[in-house]
Amino acid sequence: MSEKKNAAINKLLGARSIALCGASDKSNWSNAIYHNTHAFGFKGKVFAVNRKGVPAHGVPGYKSCQDIPEPVDLAYIYVPTEAVLDALTDVAAAGIKSVIVLSSGFAEAGAEGVALQDELVRIAEENGICLIGPNSLGVADVARGNAVTAMRPSGKLPSGKLALLSQSGSVCYEILEYALQQGIGLSVIAAVGNEAAVDQPDMIEALVDRDDVQAFAIFVETIRNPERFIAAARKTFAKRKPIVMLKVGKSEISAAIAQAHTGSLVGDDRVLDAVCARYGVVRVDSIEALINCAALMIHAGVIERPGIGAASLSGGTSGLLADAAEKYGVSFPAFAPETVAALREALPPFAGTLNPLDVTGQGFNDLTLWGRCCEIISRDPGIGFTIAAGSLNPLGAVTSHLGDALTNIGSGGIFLSNTSFAIDSEDLARRHIPAAVAGIEGIMSNLAKAIEWSARVKSSEAAAEAMAAPPAQSPTKLPRSEREVLEHLAAHGVPVVPARIVNSGQQAAEAAHAMGDGPFALKILSPDIQHKTDIGGVRLNVAAGEATTRAYEEIMASVSAARPDAAIDGVIVSPMRESGVELVVGTIRDPSWGPVIVVGLGGVWVEVLKDSQLRPLPIDRSEAIEMVNGLKAAALLKGFRGAPPADIEKLADTIVAIGNAALALGPELATLEINPLRVRGGEIEALDGLATYETGKEA
Amino acid sequence: MSEKKNAAINKLLGARSIALCGASDKSNWSNAIYHNTHAFGFKGKVFAVNRKGVPAHGVPGYKSCQDIPEPVDLAYIYVPTEAVLDALTDVAAAGIKSVIVLSSGFAEAGAEGVALQDELVRIAEENGICLIGPNSLGVADVARGNAVTAMRPSGKLPSGKLALLSQSGSVCYEILEYALQQGIGLSVIAAVGNEAAVDQPDMIEALVDRDDVQAFAIFVETIRNPERFIAAARKTFAKRKPIVMLKVGKSEISAAIAQAHTGSLVGDDRVLDAVCARYGVVRVDSIEALINCAALMIHAGVIERPGIGAASLSGGTSGLLADAAEKYGVSFPAFAPETVAALREALPPFAGTLNPLDVTGQGFNDLTLWGRCCEIISRDPGIGFTIAAGSLNPLGAVTSHLGDALTNIGSGGIFLSNTSFAIDSEDLARRHIPAAVAGIEGIMSNLAKAIEWSARVKSSEAAAEAMAAPPAQSPTKLPRSEREVLEHLAAHGVPVVPARIVNSGQQAAEAAHAMGDGPFALKILSPDIQHKTDIGGVRLNVAAGEATTRAYEEIMASVSAARPDAAIDGVIVSPMRESGVELVVGTIRDPSWGPVIVVGLGGVWVEVLKDSQLRPLPIDRSEAIEMVNGLKAAALLKGFRGAPPADIEKLADTIVAIGNAALALGPELATLEINPLRVRGGEIEALDGLATYETGKEA
Repeated sequence: MSEKKNAAINKLLGARSIALCGASDKSNWSNAIYHNTHAFGFKGKVFAVNRKGVPAHGVPGYKSCQDIPEPVDLAYIYVPTEAVLDALTDVAAAGIKSVIVLSSGFAEAGAEGVALQDELVRIAEENGICLIGPNSLGVADVARGNAVTAMRPSGKLPSGKLALLSQSGSVCYEILEYALQQGIGLSVIAAVGNEAAVDQPDMIEALVDRDDVQAFAIFVETIRNPERFIAAARKTFAKRKPIVMLKVGKSEISAAIAQAHTGSLVGDDRVLDAVCARYGVVRVDSIEALINCAALMIHAGVIERPGIGAASLSGGTSGLLADAAEKYGVSFPAFAPETVAALREALPPFAGTLNPLDVTGQGFNDLTLWGRCCEIISRDPGIGFTIAAGSLNPLGAVTSHLGDALTNIGSGGIFLSNTSFAIDSEDLARRHIPAAVAGIEGIMSNLAKAIEWSARVKSSEAAAEAMAAPPAQSPTKLPRSEREVLEHLAAHGVPVVPARIVNSGQQAAEAAHAMGDGPFALKILSPDIQHKTDIGGVRLNVAAGEATTRAYEEIMASVSAARPDAAIDGVIVSPMRESGVELVVGTIRDPSWGPVIVVGLGGVWVEVLKDSQLRPLPIDRSEAIEMVNGLKAAALLKGFRGAPPADIEKLADTIVAIGNAALALGPELATLEINPLRVRGGEIEALDGLATYETGKEA
Repeated sequence: MSEKKNAAINKLLGARSIALCGASDKSNWSNAIYHNTHAFGFKGKVFAVNRKGVPAHGVPGYKSCQDIPEPVDLAYIYVPTEAVLDALTDVAAAGIKSVIVLSSGFAEAGAEGVALQDELVRIAEENGICLIGPNSLGVADVARGNAVTAMRPSGKLPSGKLALLSQSGSVCYEILEYALQQGIGLSVIAAVGNEAAVDQPDMIEALVDRDDVQAFAIFVETIRNPERFIAAARKTFAKRKPIVMLKVGKSEISAAIAQAHTGSLVGDDRVLDAVCARYGVVRVDSIEALINCAALMIHAGVIERPGIGAASLSGGTSGLLADAAEKYGVSFPAFAPETVAALREALPPFAGTLNPLDVTGQGFNDLTLWGRCCEIISRDPGIGFTIAAGSLNPLGAVTSHLGDALTNIGSGGIFLSNTSFAIDSEDLARRHIPAAVAGIEGIMSNLAKAIEWSARVKSSEAAAEAMAAPPAQSPTKLPRSEREVLEHLAAHGVPVVPARIVNSGQQAAEAAHAMGDGPFALKILSPDIQHKTDIGGVRLNVAAGEATTRAYEEIMASVSAARPDAAIDGVIVSPMRESGVELVVGTIRDPSWGPVIVVGLGGVWVEVLKDSQLRPLPIDRSEAIEMVNGLKAAALLKGFRGAPPADIEKLADTIVAIGNAALALGPELATLEINPLRVRGGEIEALDGLATYETGKEA
């Protein structure tokens, strides 16, 4: 994004004088908007603009922004749809450079609305106006006490380090209310609406350098510009500020709703998942997780070790923690011997020293015990994050003793309310508790994501150099036949099965002889024939010598009988391979996200179990290893039933090479499929390859 | 459970005079307990009993219960552990028949504690005392205003129709606080502690007939008596009152904690899952779900159709609803044409009619619109339950208009707060809203369970007659060899592969001839040889005629060379079968739950993917069909890649027959395994069978 846009957005957020275009004492919207300026602490001037030029909300009224006798920084337009263009023209004439449009009836309302919105953008661009909306419930810079928004919080929002961005205004409002209930502070809130000119990536880039923005919580219905989304995510990830994203459209119905609602197609959600994983965008499934996960990540920062420790006052709680941890893949490792020794000294003799720790009811008698145990746990060499799990209510066990211990632990620990309770930040302050989240399931699910993000931060640092640019050369001639595809793959370092093209039975036998003892596979080579097996064009398990000659002749006879029209380039002779694990490795071109590589096990594994892994191209070796290990069927590659374990590093290199081979074919390539890629120990070979191109022609 | 125990528990809950043994103004526990009697509305008399016989909490004090000059219904004992037996002896001498023991240090504290607890139970039994605890935080009959408990709620608990039972006192307290925050009414609360004499099944049976108990929410660390658990579940299920259960011990760590904590082993969680599914016990994973799912089920009752409808005021909300529904397997079917027509008439022209419905912002202008849409949706022939999803806060859209519509819809609809908000039941009442839950993820997950439970209610009604008692006869001679096992299976209606036992090469060839064209399989038959293949005891794909004779001779030569010691009963000749899908069907005996049947696909499917289904025996056909359809690999049986689709009903009957064959072998049977059960279209055959017995001897 341009520095200019960046500066314009920040200027908009810092407006010191506001014109409310559509202001009226009779309008609920207008009342809420005016109320909010004060509720958020706005200290600048507010002017009412309306058709009659009458005052509203106790501030002077004008018929036009041009009539306002003082300079105005920002105009919020909420006149009827049909009056919006005129209002914007007036705003432009008044020299106002920051505009938010609340009015709806634009791109979200069909073709006519799209045209209206285009006109809106044109006027804004011509006049150098930074435009948010239309269909925007407004923005608030909570940290600085600025607000131009129709979203009226039910209480005083605490200021914090989380920026909340939402396309939907109504969901934005519900998110901020939830944050308020949970005592989680926000720094900036922006309901970006239709994103006609300023979209979420713009907002992210404009905010990412602020110290009071340590994470983004974004609610997304559609990603309008994948490239800029990636650019914003990259920049944010590089600064270790997580983007937590709740995006609708995972399900078919929801995708249809989003399309109806935003006019944009929803892409393949699994591809988006892979893109997010690559660029450190954390996906969540609920409003609660959006807020709680972001808050947890702001507090925890990069978690250095994946092991989690916990201490509670009841065995029941410990059990719930352990079960939820397993469900979400979070690990409670056994404590180190020095931790166990220290705990034994602190705890009564009947207490155990399992992780999660049951401090026992003794924690109610000795009010320092719980905090001391938390501190001991936090020092364990295997523990990266410590949870004090309990209830903020009963019997006074959650005291400032515990709060002080958590303060000492700092970003490496947190208080967990065992149930999804509202959190009163003043109550926390009284107890000296620096940070708290609520709900056992929630924290485990969110910790799993925070730990994954932390691991990616660290691996991306390690891999920053390794991730070289992909080969960019596009071959002069695109490979089309199976043989050409395999040769192209081989040229990019993909091991392929040996093969010779022969044109007589005699040549076939010689080629086979040169390859070893057999048995061999023979396949017809023709640009015109796709289903070779159906017309007798394939012979498998052919013995050496005379049998090879005979197989050649039989293939030629069958094929010429079935397809006398087909051009025949010969017959391919290859050695048959002992059975191994058969992978399918393919690339596709996602309409939004570009080339993507897919790895799965062949046959029923992919078809019945949908067991595959995706990544945007290019990938590096560590990502390829992640893909292989991410398969449900990964155990089959690890030496299942006496088979030699696969050489995973060689396999990963092969997958990387296939990705590079696909990229080298340039944007014309639609799909590249290696099926199977045979794996048996260190023997890894592409046995077949197929490329299709955007033109529709395939080999 | 006996009627007597039932009556004793109800008498305990209805106590009209209470002795507090251990009462002291200095004790936080004692203060909380006394406070609670009044907080819950107790109108009877309270007496203090303590060593000095001094008053406490403003009520008269006595040294002994026997000194109290009036009859006492119930004693709550919270003296130090070592004084509990004396206190109970005193209570017994005073003729008090209801006792709760809060003191801990019993079975949960090791061997000494176990002995102490046994003594406690002995004294109680000898004196006809109904004993709850030890280690019990007490009970409250919220509906009747009776309470003897140390759990002090932070506000006034609304009275409702949910009974809450918990082994852990501290978790019980957190659950009731959560219910209080969510405005969900409870009728009875019981922290049953160590369950020395009265356990959760006892409580369930004692309460199940109360009109103000329409569901149970139970928190479980260990199920001490599986048989009575099943009996209580059966009774409750028959009355259509759901038991919602949160049980720790799913994970390995949690199981270890539960064992340390309760002294009981945690059984296989998947078996428990199967038992719960059978008897209509709904399992949940969190405290939030325990309360919200139970409340939802009380409100909804049996949901007649699985289709869910929803209406919200924003497309973003609809998207979140649809995504969460897909995640949890809940269906939002398209509306029927008459519904679409009615909605079109009600809605503005730019609105769509997808389900979940976006009523659009028009709902803020026309405050009757939302409710009208909900009523239209609730009348759709495909919709069994309707959700009005929104926020209780903003802009006044959730009015009594909507509340009245939901009241009309009754048990078929509910208000959903889109985020996990605290719910104020007085606010609901003002808006005429009859029932509300909070959180999109939560309601979808809970609805999935409620719908499954409803389906089971209906299928159990249909199947009530079909589920005949299993065959009880135990054979005089237990089958041990593969052949005997297959014959036993055949006798119970399991189709088994044809086989003949032969004792010469000539007989082998004749037997083969009688079976068809071949090829054939030959296997050595010996009670002494387990791994037949390793010593050349198996020959596959043997052609008819001379080859069969030769194979017989080769087997005999190999085997007698390798195992000259082994007794040989002959060789089994069977036809080889065309490849099909190979299932493994087995039975095991769970130490807690008895015989269980397991169905899975053979080979890697079971081993790598853990793709199997379990049910307690006996099963009926509909359960067997459920098992088959529940396999991840079910698609392989439905006509995958041109194979004939399996005859699922015949397969189900075969699985039922295998279960019955296992039961017929009586309690000595440890495992019965059919591996493989070959399935190809309607050809279903057991190819191999193995039985093992508790004595350790196997075929």
